[in-house]
Amino acid sequence: MTTHIVCLAAGQGTRMNSDRPKVLHEIAHAPLFVHALGAARDLDGGRRVLVVGHGADEVRAAAADALPDLEIVEQAERRGTAHAVAQARPALQGAGGDVIVLYGDTPFIRPETLARLAAARAGGADVVVLGFEAADPGRYGRLVVEGGTLERIVEFKDATEAEQAITLCNSGVVCADAALLFDLIDAVGCENASGEYYLTDIVGIARARGLHAAAVTCPEAETMGINTRAELARAEALWQARRRAEALADGVTLVAPDTVFFAHDTHIGRDAVVEPNVVFGPDVTVESGAVIRAFSHLEGAHVGARAVIGPYARLRPGAEIGNGAKIGNFVEVKAAEIGEGAKVNHLSYVGDAQVGEAANLGAGTVTCNYDGVFKHRTEIGAGAFIGSSTMLVAPVRIGAGAMTGSGSVITSDVPDGALAIGRARQVVKDGLARRMMDRLRAAKAKRTN
Amino acid sequence: MTTHIVCLAAGQGTRMNSDRPKVLHEIAHAPLFVHALGAARDLDGGRRVLVVGHGADEVRAAAADALPDLEIVEQAERRGTAHAVAQARPALQGAGGDVIVLYGDTPFIRPETLARLAAARAGGADVVVLGFEAADPGRYGRLVVEGGTLERIVEFKDATEAEQAITLCNSGVVCADAALLFDLIDAVGCENASGEYYLTDIVGIARARGLHAAAVTCPEAETMGINTRAELARAEALWQARRRAEALADGVTLVAPDTVFFAHDTHIGRDAVVEPNVVFGPDVTVESGAVIRAFSHLEGAHVGARAVIGPYARLRPGAEIGNGAKIGNFVEVKAAEIGEGAKVNHLSYVGDAQVGEAANLGAGTVTCNYDGVFKHRTEIGAGAFIGSSTMLVAPVRIGAGAMTGSGSVITSDVPDGALAIGRARQVVKDGLARRMMDRLRAAKAKRTN
Amino acid sequence: MTTHIVCLAAGQGTRMNSDRPKVLHEIAHAPLFVHALGAARDLDGGRRVLVVGHGADEVRAAAADALPDLEIVEQAERRGTAHAVAQARPALQGAGGDVIVLYGDTPFIRPETLARLAAARAGGADVVVLGFEAADPGRYGRLVVEGGTLERIVEFKDATEAEQAITLCNSGVVCADAALLFDLIDAVGCENASGEYYLTDIVGIARARGLHAAAVTCPEAETMGINTRAELARAEALWQARRRAEALADGVTLVAPDTVFFAHDTHIGRDAVVEPNVVFGPDVTVESGAVIRAFSHLEGAHVGARAVIGPYARLRPGAEIGNGAKIGNFVEVKAAEIGEGAKVNHLSYVGDAQVGEAANLGAGTVTCNYDGVFKHRTEIGAGAFIGSSTMLVAPVRIGAGAMTGSGSVITSDVPDGALAIGRARQVVKDGLARRMMDRLRAAKAKRTN
Repeated sequence: MTTHIVCLAAGQGTRMNSDRPKVLHEIAHAPLFVHALGAARDLDGGRRVLVVGHGADEVRAAAADALPDLEIVEQAERRGTAHAVAQARPALQGAGGDVIVLYGDTPFIRPETLARLAAARAGGADVVVLGFEAADPGRYGRLVVEGGTLERIVEFKDATEAEQAITLCNSGVVCADAALLFDLIDAVGCENASGEYYLTDIVGIARARGLHAAAVTCPEAETMGINTRAELARAEALWQARRRAEALADGVTLVAPDTVFFAHDTHIGRDAVVEPNVVFGPDVTVESGAVIRAFSHLEGAHVGARAVIGPYARLRPGAEIGNGAKIGNFVEVKAAEIGEGAKVNHLSYVGDAQVGEAANLGAGTVTCNYDGVFKHRTEIGAGAFIGSSTMLVAPVRIGAGAMTGSGSVITSDVPDGALAIGRARQVVKDGLARRMMDRLRAAKAKRTN
Repeated sequence: MTTHIVCLAAGQGTRMNSDRPKVLHEIAHAPLFVHALGAARDLDGGRRVLVVGHGADEVRAAAADALPDLEIVEQAERRGTAHAVAQARPALQGAGGDVIVLYGDTPFIRPETLARLAAARAGGADVVVLGFEAADPGRYGRLVVEGGTLERIVEFKDATEAEQAITLCNSGVVCADAALLFDLIDAVGCENASGEYYLTDIVGIARARGLHAAAVTCPEAETMGINTRAELARAEALWQARRRAEALADGVTLVAPDTVFFAHDTHIGRDAVVEPNVVFGPDVTVESGAVIRAFSHLEGAHVGARAVIGPYARLRPGAEIGNGAKIGNFVEVKAAEIGEGAKVNHLSYVGDAQVGEAANLGAGTVTCNYDGVFKHRTEIGAGAFIGSSTMLVAPVRIGAGAMTGSGSVITSDVPDGALAIGRARQVVKDGLARRMMDRLRAAKAKRTN
Repeated sequence: MTTHIVCLAAGQGTRMNSDRPKVLHEIAHAPLFVHALGAARDLDGGRRVLVVGHGADEVRAAAADALPDLEIVEQAERRGTAHAVAQARPALQGAGGDVIVLYGDTPFIRPETLARLAAARAGGADVVVLGFEAADPGRYGRLVVEGGTLERIVEFKDATEAEQAITLCNSGVVCADAALLFDLIDAVGCENASGEYYLTDIVGIARARGLHAAAVTCPEAETMGINTRAELARAEALWQARRRAEALADGVTLVAPDTVFFAHDTHIGRDAVVEPNVVFGPDVTVESGAVIRAFSHLEGAHVGARAVIGPYARLRPGAEIGNGAKIGNFVEVKAAEIGEGAKVNHLSYVGDAQVGEAANLGAGTVTCNYDGVFKHRTEIGAGAFIGSSTMLVAPVRIGAGAMTGSGSVITSDVPDGALAIGRARQVVKDGLARRMMDRLRAAKAKRTN
């Protein structure tokens, strides 16, 4: 059975206290709605419809970026969840199959859970609702299940005492045949305190028509919705805790797991070691046996096997660190390939460059890649030795086995095996430092008198 | 009613195991006694008296620095809390009004709590004592309240079994009419095991005189006193947790709240983003929409709207970062104004400087501001382009739209739109690197044989 | 009574999911087996035997490095704990005295606990087993003690219901007379499901011979064994929490204890201050009153009294920082002595060097200590002033009170009080920057059209 997804992402999220639409706030460097749609990753073939509203343009742009296959529909006015789902009708016209309604601010529902919704449909339920056993049911809507049938969903304020005692609560996620779903939605009214059309009403309508409704449950943690920044921070913490546990199980050494921050797409190989206080931005792969030392920051980087990164190394997008290479402290690498066994140990900026195998870049090396308008490339040959504080004014090529003298500004290519040097001769003026300092100190003494 | 404060800050704090007087240990970069006096911030017009003793000179100096309006009195000998309060008598002579006694090592009492003490006084109580319901009353003094009247304060060791069962405990904070307070204190004796004059005795004395005493309560957490460094660390953690929650509620994104450390006076605007592992020292303001990236450290700095700081940026006092400016990795900024949209992206030191709008400072830029005795200023014009590893020997002025060549030492002013360069011509010696390395390797082979 | 130790370290630790033998995984920069043997530190004179097996060569090498007095024996096949202990027989031949069997993956047993085992032996027990009251006994083996006698150890799966109710569990640590131990081990059979020889069987055998066996207990936390990386991380966290509490009790200020990581041998003096996010590698001593600022990383370093390190300072092995000296941000110091009151405040690399008292090294100073094959030394005299971005090409000596000009490359010695300078004269080309930028921008406009 084809299963389509309608993901509601139109709300403003007032309690976030933010100009940014709620579903664009991120966990592990991916927006909330991307996490929410992750639940559907194992459902093949169906359409994915995102209902946007508040901040529609921003959400549309983010969706185009992260999930280009999404269909976007806009809910111009916010008139309730049923009304929001109704906006997806044209996008699903003639699509057949089932629809699952998800929420863009509910990031933790698992694919297994959606599979169970689909199974309940296959087992004969016309409408399936996802519920959870709440530790503290509070003011959640209650699922009234009798003899295996979901009879109705009761809002807390309308619940009888017996119904309030129910702990099975409504997640809002529903699954139904597409045509039926829109048909039921047409019957939903807005005669309630807020004047909105509620999706939950479809259960009662379906039952009144003699259709079968069922509840499927999942752990409460999956249904966590994000309404405030504090909840967002808690969700991030939960996500990170889970990801750290996975990394440990995968054979990664995390000396202090609580201080390592992963992105949604970080890959780390077995027997890699990650020291305390490491931050992974998006799109990082670390191969087996590599060591990421304390206080390192990686984004868009690939770290080869047995390479050693940091402490205090910053790898930026396009950093390709070869096997066994070493990137040391206070070193920034961007859009640069560092060859196998090469070393950039201290205080350097290597950008838009290719560094050959076993090359050694001294402290303070800078690839001067920017002329104020264009970026240019630097090539450094295998086994080259770049003296400390060498400025490599790109475009420039340093040959294999070549050397540069410390403090040189290199503006033209250096052949293989050559030494390039560009610096003034040292001059010594005897006693001058002493006389200068005497003069300065005398001036100071005068000022302070 | 005018309410004066007497804050006791004379103790040594032996259990801190420190040469520093206890009340000078800090939470969020402010000494404990400053936090304690914060409780009085809404009480207008009264005098503030700090009773110092152990480390008097150090405490006096810190008080002069942080709260110059405080009156300082010294308790030469430590003879108990009543004796300590008595030292404030001359400072409050003829002041009229009420006195609240606070403790310099008790940082968390809230202004609302003192307002309730004052209200109880206004309601007719002659002496008001602040109590708290203790989760584990242990050896705290107990407040014996009968029919709305505080009858007496019983030390745990003197308590009957019935009194030991009381969970309302004594915080030590009291409020009374100034003249009455000193009058009651005169009646306190020192016939007890330690031979000290206890302030708590004034309740019994007042009751014996037929005066009315009352208890006011606050949450136990407010009354937390700091006696050890472990307690200090716990207090810091509590303070930070509270401050982080406030920041989230104010609309700041904290990706990993537990890794962000605020100072007592940090201001952060709405929709600012703070990545993991950021430390705020005193006197920092971050405007709306700015991003403070991971591993940044800010003190005495102002960060404009939409500016991006870090990762690994260090802003020191006097750093004024303009709107939309960018301070990148391994960059230190001190006493410098960075213009709107200007960029200092990598490995630079900018101190005692003014950088114009949209200027770009290359990697390794250094403002050489110190001649060994004096500090000098550097001015960089709007849109200037400073080549990598340029040494700007201050005092020096780079004009608007001017450029400097990579690796130049700039010792004299550069006019608007000019290019300044100061470097030796590159010389290439063919094959020399190869011959040098061959020689060195041969020498090494010889040594190791 | 001489007490020998046999420490079992032959297991593979499959659940670690690692190529590294389990006992070589580290807590606080010391391998697990070194922690395990730490329990024996107060037992004088006995032999220490480590039974290796899986990854024998690696474990042997690590042992030779960390504990050169260990005797290593190899268990070629893994045939159970009794078989493992039996491998130590030749190493203890004729040694007399007692043997305690420890486990290389059980790092937290305390010396006091082993002392109590020895005391139980002295009190007349022929075999002593270490047990613990388990909060959740689960599938641990149970110690059946009747009237002060340890009757037998029952595996969970063989336990009667009454025995399953026992909460006193087996740690595996045993103590017995050496000759008796090996004698009992000879009687152990392998008629069980896994076909292995279990050390625990010696209790039943001893009892059958009419010998006296006794149980000694310790807190459950001491007996924690490490089987997974998650358990390793938990053990590291426990170790760190304990060490932080010790530091606080010793009078060290830890602003945020949870963010400071100690090594097994870190020493920190009273009234030292450690800011958030500091990592100590092995072999670091920090003297009284020193300040280790945020984001610092220290290994193999000695920090003098009142010195200030960081933020973002990296001290590597051989860094000797003098009293009151200052190592600032983005500074790396390796194998270098920094004199009293000297300052290296910004963005520098100081390696293989000696820096005199009160010398001042400007931003971007680099000791160019490596010629590609050899390392060379730099000496800087007292009170010398090194201009920013000076390259000190070692071997080189800067005299006392000497100065170097910013951006100089210093290749030969500078006498006391002299000024050395090596840089090209600044040339200014009026309007050239403007013309260059105009040209580049025009080129860009052309490209993008």
